[in-house]
Amino acid sequence: MGEFDLIRRYFTRPTPHAVLGVGDDCALLQPRPGMQLAISSDMLVEGRHFLSTVDPAALGHKALAVNLSDLAACGAQPLAFTLALALPSADAAWLEPFSQGLLALADAHSCELVGGDTTRGPLNICITVFGEVPPGQALLRSGARVGDDLYVSGTLGDARMALEVFRGTLSLPEAAFSQARQRLERPTPRVALGLALRGVASAAADISDGLLGDLGHILQASGVGAVVDADVATNLIATRADISCASGIFGLEKQREYALAGGDDYELVFTAPASARQAVQAAAAQAQTPVTRIGLIEARAAQGPAIRLVDADGQRLDLDLPGFDHFG
Amino acid sequence: MGEFDLIRRYFTRPTPHAVLGVGDDCALLQPRPGMQLAISSDMLVEGRHFLSTVDPAALGHKALAVNLSDLAACGAQPLAFTLALALPSADAAWLEPFSQGLLALADAHSCELVGGDTTRGPLNICITVFGEVPPGQALLRSGARVGDDLYVSGTLGDARMALEVFRGTLSLPEAAFSQARQRLERPTPRVALGLALRGVASAAADISDGLLGDLGHILQASGVGAVVDADVATNLIATRADISCASGIFGLEKQREYALAGGDDYELVFTAPASARQAVQAAAAQAQTPVTRIGLIEARAAQGPAIRLVDADGQRLDLDLPGFDHFG
Repeated sequence: MGEFDLIRRYFTRPTPHAVLGVGDDCALLQPRPGMQLAISSDMLVEGRHFLSTVDPAALGHKALAVNLSDLAACGAQPLAFTLALALPSADAAWLEPFSQGLLALADAHSCELVGGDTTRGPLNICITVFGEVPPGQALLRSGARVGDDLYVSGTLGDARMALEVFRGTLSLPEAAFSQARQRLERPTPRVALGLALRGVASAAADISDGLLGDLGHILQASGVGAVVDADVATNLIATRADISCASGIFGLEKQREYALAGGDDYELVFTAPASARQAVQAAAAQAQTPVTRIGLIEARAAQGPAIRLVDADGQRLDLDLPGFDHFG
Repeated sequence: MGEFDLIRRYFTRPTPHAVLGVGDDCALLQPRPGMQLAISSDMLVEGRHFLSTVDPAALGHKALAVNLSDLAACGAQPLAFTLALALPSADAAWLEPFSQGLLALADAHSCELVGGDTTRGPLNICITVFGEVPPGQALLRSGARVGDDLYVSGTLGDARMALEVFRGTLSLPEAAFSQARQRLERPTPRVALGLALRGVASAAADISDGLLGDLGHILQASGVGAVVDADVATNLIATRADISCASGIFGLEKQREYALAGGDDYELVFTAPASARQAVQAAAAQAQTPVTRIGLIEARAAQGPAIRLVDADGQRLDLDLPGFDHFG
């Protein structure tokens, strides 16, 4: 099967919103008058972002989900995306489920596949996604202010727990593993929450590299510090009650590590003034996405780290939990 | 050096046109009122699109050039691009010249780097480029009409000749090789010509996979056929006069192959009504880019290929020159 047949068979779709979709030199979009365009691009590499054994349908879902998560973090409404794909071979048994997983999520968000590229090469998936947001309403990393509440959506650490099961360092009961694996392989981009938080949140980022790492981006961009209740955050591990470790008890330290710096959560971390607590809960209810207050924005100390971790008793915790860095 | 330091050091640039550039979850662009957004994405893989020995500065140039070439083919004005990069390691000796080559071409076209992604993995460069075009003025593949003239810009086949020198099947005098190598490694996207052809050309595509392959896309999208003067096209090899073959005479057959199906030309193939001949030459002069009339659009025969090749005497040529297909 040739490259062009391949594109036609699996990736040519109706594009009712685009002026022109897959098949010309460029796709053409007509932005709505006055709207700003939010753009994000993520590249997924085998062995780095996913395991070679992953279900292609789940991979298709995740490749788009991580991009939609960036739009969610900006409060942007998804519009369209491009897909560039390097494949070792044009294998229908892989392409069919991959495209189904990808396009099912795209359809759920009315996000149209408008173009892209395919080539032979080591498996690599690069998606660039486009959304729209009214001017001045995008959620930025730079808006956190001293005294703001600090929130996180959904659950934390479960994706990392599934990864550790695959790595053989952890065992979980089947039902708990299945739940954690869903979080790793089929993350839910918090698009509805991001939209509901427009005008409510003061800053936001999505959690791809771990809560503390991505919170650190907000703090740096905003020039502030934060205190985080590590126990509240650790309680957000959904499958925590089901833990039994392959090598002894799965201790509090590992739980904290996975919740605070596990990676692959694709939740939103965001800040909002204390006066907006009701509005935050209303946004969460509207988006049908739980949010939990996990800390507070404070002035950044001249010395020391930007994030202070405390336990349930308010006692300071010193944990060594670096954010995930692809070149660290 | 961490991923974020890497991004900051080599790829963070002023973005005077973007509302928000590199460093948040999304970039934000404010399209000009009423303008359509043209989008294209290309992925370059080592060994497939470039040789491992290529100068990183040339590779940076080419990675953006092939995307700008898609905008040129649509008659779109470049605005911004994202860069997703998988690298085996964060090597400053590679990143510095790569970013310089990339950003020099970006600056020449006022095309801003607004975001992207970096990760560790087999070398892979994925650029998505954005341009703008007034509604209804984009050059499409589907607009060719029976009786239209068929044109190509610039020169053909030289990039392929340089590739064959690298492959050891051809030798060239040093000056000719240097010229051909520039065409392979530092193609010139025909952005100014694409803009000048708005309202003049009836259809256009850029030549990445070879003249006949990309012309075929126009013919298919337009439901027409074409007759192409193979000798006129073959005369467009700039370094043709300097040819001496490593294994005997570099014959007419190979010259025709490289001109008609060589690949990597990044010229424009386009059509225009015969009544627009003066306007086409005026556009070429305005863009300081030579264009050559190489054939004619005709009705597509019920049977047989969409493209009829003829020689200088109008005699039919039967050449077996498939377009390059990444999965062929």
